[in-house]
Amino acid sequence: MPSDITHDPAEIRRQCRAGTFDGYTAGLAPGRVQANLMIVPRAQAYDFAVFCQRNPKPCPVLDITDPGDPEPRAIAPGADIRSDLPRYRVFRHGELVDEPTDITDLWRDDLVGFLIGCSYTFEDAMVAAGLPIRHVEEGVNTSMYRTGRDCAVSGGFAGPMVVSMRPMTPEQAATAVEVTRPYVRAHGAPIHVGDPAALGIADIDSPDYGDRVTIKPGEVPVFWACGVTPQTVVLNAKPEIAISHAPGHMFVADIESTSLLD
Amino acid sequence: MPSDITHDPAEIRRQCRAGTFDGYTAGLAPGRVQANLMIVPRAQAYDFAVFCQRNPKPCPVLDITDPGDPEPRAIAPGADIRSDLPRYRVFRHGELVDEPTDITDLWRDDLVGFLIGCSYTFEDAMVAAGLPIRHVEEGVNTSMYRTGRDCAVSGGFAGPMVVSMRPMTPEQAATAVEVTRPYVRAHGAPIHVGDPAALGIADIDSPDYGDRVTIKPGEVPVFWACGVTPQTVVLNAKPEIAISHAPGHMFVADIESTSLLD
Repeated sequence: MPSDITHDPAEIRRQCRAGTFDGYTAGLAPGRVQANLMIVPRAQAYDFAVFCQRNPKPCPVLDITDPGDPEPRAIAPGADIRSDLPRYRVFRHGELVDEPTDITDLWRDDLVGFLIGCSYTFEDAMVAAGLPIRHVEEGVNTSMYRTGRDCAVSGGFAGPMVVSMRPMTPEQAATAVEVTRPYVRAHGAPIHVGDPAALGIADIDSPDYGDRVTIKPGEVPVFWACGVTPQTVVLNAKPEIAISHAPGHMFVADIESTSLLD
Repeated sequence: MPSDITHDPAEIRRQCRAGTFDGYTAGLAPGRVQANLMIVPRAQAYDFAVFCQRNPKPCPVLDITDPGDPEPRAIAPGADIRSDLPRYRVFRHGELVDEPTDITDLWRDDLVGFLIGCSYTFEDAMVAAGLPIRHVEEGVNTSMYRTGRDCAVSGGFAGPMVVSMRPMTPEQAATAVEVTRPYVRAHGAPIHVGDPAALGIADIDSPDYGDRVTIKPGEVPVFWACGVTPQTVVLNAKPEIAISHAPGHMFVADIESTSLLD
């Protein structure tokens, strides 16, 4: 990986566009906001917008593009959501059908992009506080799980909340709450510490999205609401087409992480 | 005014519904959330939802009702937005045509209600911090002004931000910033302290909404973003019908003010 890709959001997006980068974005561009993506047709966009309003913990909306306009003007003027992410997921009628690195050929005049806050936004603040980010240490994707907690429904958009997980000691977990709580629009404080079963997660070693990471002796799993949640609810809403980022392959925005602090 | 109306949100709403209360709500039900209302047809609701997302300072959305459903389930289960506010404003094609105390006869199956955070939510916290609320002291409506600051546009929804104003000393203003900043979903910290002209306000003694209040010697005007802003933008969007609260006559919710603290 060229060294400049690690810090410059515009260079990360340029390499995504050029096809020279299709990897995970955790740990890249510290200090910048990273965002989940969900693109739906205008016909489904109202119900999805209301879904996000009703589920602000997993779905804090940072930017909504105008129909047919691929530029996320609020968080990265000049960027193009059709090409500037490392990898996408394409859903047709609620089925995952493809994982391309560019969706320009699928673009339509009625598509609307929702950019949704991501916990990668605060990971550098966690590192600065001495907290471990195991998926970065191990060079794998974040562990993500479907929970037993149902989201608030809007139209056909319904389904379980997805969470990301980072293992750490209980003492570190207390610090993590303190560090991440102010980043409300990047999921904020953890929703649970310690017991996967309490969230309806049967096997912590079998994430539903991303990779397994090592939980060391004395560590507990710490769970944050996750912007992959829309990818579970489109399975139920079954819009004709929906396009998301591939989990772990986020949109890297220009705005600074601290701009999300309330 | 019966004494119980001052503290119990359900009793305030019951008296609105019964037609025995149509006054200002500032100072009522301390500790409870108060909300601005904007009702638009489903056909305009997406553009309005995006308008709110793009203008979170004046338009933090607390609840969105389903089309045709008058119950704001998130902030006051069982309440009815058609009757439970003291007074409404009815706009047809962008013109204010009526100020009734009940809108049940105007209700349609396609109407959607947006409940938007209101600065009255944090006024009791200001009082507890020793800050003056001049409009409550003087028994008048809050002073509100159209500013020269344009909101971010969504579809036909465009127009200037409206602000509320509370006079206090500069030292008190500093405390007010500290006290109100955490209430992000009730407009949070002031957007300006001191100079009306900097906001494009020509005459501080001539508010565009509400009443003039006394600014004492040594006091400066302190301005907060205001949820009356949608009432200026519907003048431009000109939906067939739009119904808001009358300024100062808010929806009093059940949820506690502290529930808005991030």
